Amino acid sequence: MADTCPVIEKSRAEAFSDGVIAVAITLLALDLHVPPPGSGSLGTQLAHNWPNYVAYVVSFVTIGIIWINHRAMLSRLHSLDHSALILNLILLMTVVALPFSTSLMAAYLRAPHGEKLAAAVYGGSFLLMALAFVALQVYILAERRQLLHERITPELRAAVFRRNAVGVVPYAIATAGAFLSPYVTLAVCALLAVYYAMPGTSVGAPDAD
Amino acid sequence: MADTCPVIEKSRAEAFSDGVIAVAITLLALDLHVPPPGSGSLGTQLAHNWPNYVAYVVSFVTIGIIWINHRAMLSRLHSLDHSALILNLILLMTVVALPFSTSLMAAYLRAPHGEKLAAAVYGGSFLLMALAFVALQVYILAERRQLLHERITPELRAAVFRRNAVGVVPYAIATAGAFLSPYVTLAVCALLAVYYAMPGTSVGAPDAD
Amino acid sequence: MADTCPVIEKSRAEAFSDGVIAVAITLLALDLHVPPPGSGSLGTQLAHNWPNYVAYVVSFVTIGIIWINHRAMLSRLHSLDHSALILNLILLMTVVALPFSTSLMAAYLRAPHGEKLAAAVYGGSFLLMALAFVALQVYILAERRQLLHERITPELRAAVFRRNAVGVVPYAIATAGAFLSPYVTLAVCALLAVYYAMPGTSVGAPDAD
Amino acid sequence: MADTCPVIEKSRAEAFSDGVIAVAITLLALDLHVPPPGSGSLGTQLAHNWPNYVAYVVSFVTIGIIWINHRAMLSRLHSLDHSALILNLILLMTVVALPFSTSLMAAYLRAPHGEKLAAAVYGGSFLLMALAFVALQVYILAERRQLLHERITPELRAAVFRRNAVGVVPYAIATAGAFLSPYVTLAVCALLAVYYAMPGTSVGAPDAD
Repeated sequence: MADTCPVIEKSRAEAFSDGVIAVAITLLALDLHVPPPGSGSLGTQLAHNWPNYVAYVVSFVTIGIIWINHRAMLSRLHSLDHSALILNLILLMTVVALPFSTSLMAAYLRAPHGEKLAAAVYGGSFLLMALAFVALQVYILAERRQLLHERITPELRAAVFRRNAVGVVPYAIATAGAFLSPYVTLAVCALLAVYYAMPGTSVGAPDAD
Repeated sequence: MADTCPVIEKSRAEAFSDGVIAVAITLLALDLHVPPPGSGSLGTQLAHNWPNYVAYVVSFVTIGIIWINHRAMLSRLHSLDHSALILNLILLMTVVALPFSTSLMAAYLRAPHGEKLAAAVYGGSFLLMALAFVALQVYILAERRQLLHERITPELRAAVFRRNAVGVVPYAIATAGAFLSPYVTLAVCALLAVYYAMPGTSVGAPDAD
Repeated sequence: MADTCPVIEKSRAEAFSDGVIAVAITLLALDLHVPPPGSGSLGTQLAHNWPNYVAYVVSFVTIGIIWINHRAMLSRLHSLDHSALILNLILLMTVVALPFSTSLMAAYLRAPHGEKLAAAVYGGSFLLMALAFVALQVYILAERRQLLHERITPELRAAVFRRNAVGVVPYAIATAGAFLSPYVTLAVCALLAVYYAMPGTSVGAPDAD
Repeated sequence: MADTCPVIEKSRAEAFSDGVIAVAITLLALDLHVPPPGSGSLGTQLAHNWPNYVAYVVSFVTIGIIWINHRAMLSRLHSLDHSALILNLILLMTVVALPFSTSLMAAYLRAPHGEKLAAAVYGGSFLLMALAFVALQVYILAERRQLLHERITPELRAAVFRRNAVGVVPYAIATAGAFLSPYVTLAVCALLAVYYAMPGTSVGAPDAD
């Protein structure tokens, strides 16, 4: 029954998702701390905060790419049903948690203890986001083809799924690598951000349409 | 007189509401604290913060569902008059207060004192939001039918009202249950979030169109 | 020359203004403080914070009404020129400062010193917002009639100006009243919020179309 | 191949950029601090915070002008390709960092040490934003003319480039001037904000269409 299973126009879901992702990406900047005046050389202190700047850039670009991918994924739809909205909400919940895991990573990167766990949380939060992305993608392309406004060939679908699956792997590696060193996690995430930002690569990570 | 009672296009009210709800849902993440390095085992401290994560997920999903319901409610309208805008503003005011009550709940869940009051505030803030939702719904469907862009049958209206009324009850129970234990409130709110997120249930809590 | 004086579509200016006002209204909630657990009775502490709740509600409703008025004002236009955009930016700058003046008011309402100045800043920030609103309104209606998408009669223009001028007065009173007592300021601002929220009154404060 | 190089509709990129810039401009207000009650004369303390107010106004107007310019730049396009989205993302990353550099500037303006470095970071962050703007502008006008929805004459293109190049210079001066005195940086940035806000000047700084 239409009344108990309302279908929501794509444009509203896009506007809300855009808003949530825009706020989350901007909150990353709250972790760029101003050292209190009078507490030593400003240059030294700013230089000492380099993990914050690196984590800021890596997370900013990664969220930006997820936004690009999210656009591309939704552009295939004309509307979203209840389950698609809930899966989208779960995806947004993982995006909104990224300023927290980014801040954790920056705070613990050089700490003598907890640095591996912090890096695992950081990599794991990207992995979770990638998995939530795949879940929504699979739901749309496999379960609810009636939401698509164009036909999709089995070949294209298979290609999207393959690229999605492949896109999850590096984040799993980044998470596992945390137990070697937090720098492994940071390096893998940074390389992924650079890779997906390069012209000519398919647009973006876990989804890549 | 049109000049003293301007009617505002639905799309502007939607865009503003989307923006406010998007910011409020994202601010929930500010309560995911990074433990200061050097203050003990990171694992222990993160594990100790579990009420923050549970409260984050419950509130995030609940606000997300309210957003879905808000979309469905406004989709029936072509414009909003002054009173509908004010009722919508009051609804938004209850949504914006949720990061505060969520943070209160997380901080006091295991405290020896104040935990019941904190839970009552948490449940009560959801109850308030549900009541504000019903007030706007009733105003639209009963008072200002000329704002609707489609006819609504008396049967559908009665069904919406019934579902709205029923939707308020669990939050009243969650609030009252706080005086038994804060865990009752958290459990009821968590179950409601899961229930409304399930496929096949009518979309969402207090309004449910 | 069109190139050096670009005219921007109304819809983009609306979207940006909606976004800024939505964030500012939501940031008001950051001033709802969670008392640290273990620092005394939670009930007493929450009750003690009542100025924060009152200031939150008054500012929330006032910003909401300004948003309604802003909508009504822009709905008369088809586009904005450079000066209208700058005047709009100045208006937004006054709105964005309101969470600060609200927080100042709440913090000092019962303080033995500084309470009058804090109230004057609070009332003054609303006054500034009202004046910025009038400036934009006058510019649009008197200076740049070619931006309007409908003809406006001299009578309507005069009526709008009169109402605008009248709308500034109560905020001037609220500001001046601070030097009697901060409660005068708070009461005047609260009454204004209630008055403009009432059905049947013209929509909103300083602009009132 | 369209699939690996998706082109995103301009309207989505605009909505996301509007959101990010709206949040960043609003977060500037978080640096307007409320002095703790009981810590001395409120008037003295508020007056003492004048660098925060000046920096707030200068940064608010500058970000507002960048938004106006960003609108004008995108208004020439019908869609954005992957590289344009990434360049836009880098531009947004520089905008989002401005509340940090603004806060740094305000905190150190009168400090005995670090004040020149803080001012250099402040001017440098505007310079970086101007350069990111030019990079996107050049990419659009020179590299990807097929994204434009209108023909652009070589004369107009040359004029835009010239104005862009000229727009970068004052921010380079503001940055270099920091090593004379932080007040030089602040004054140059303030004068630029006033200049670009004046009616009759071309719209805005580094891009100026």
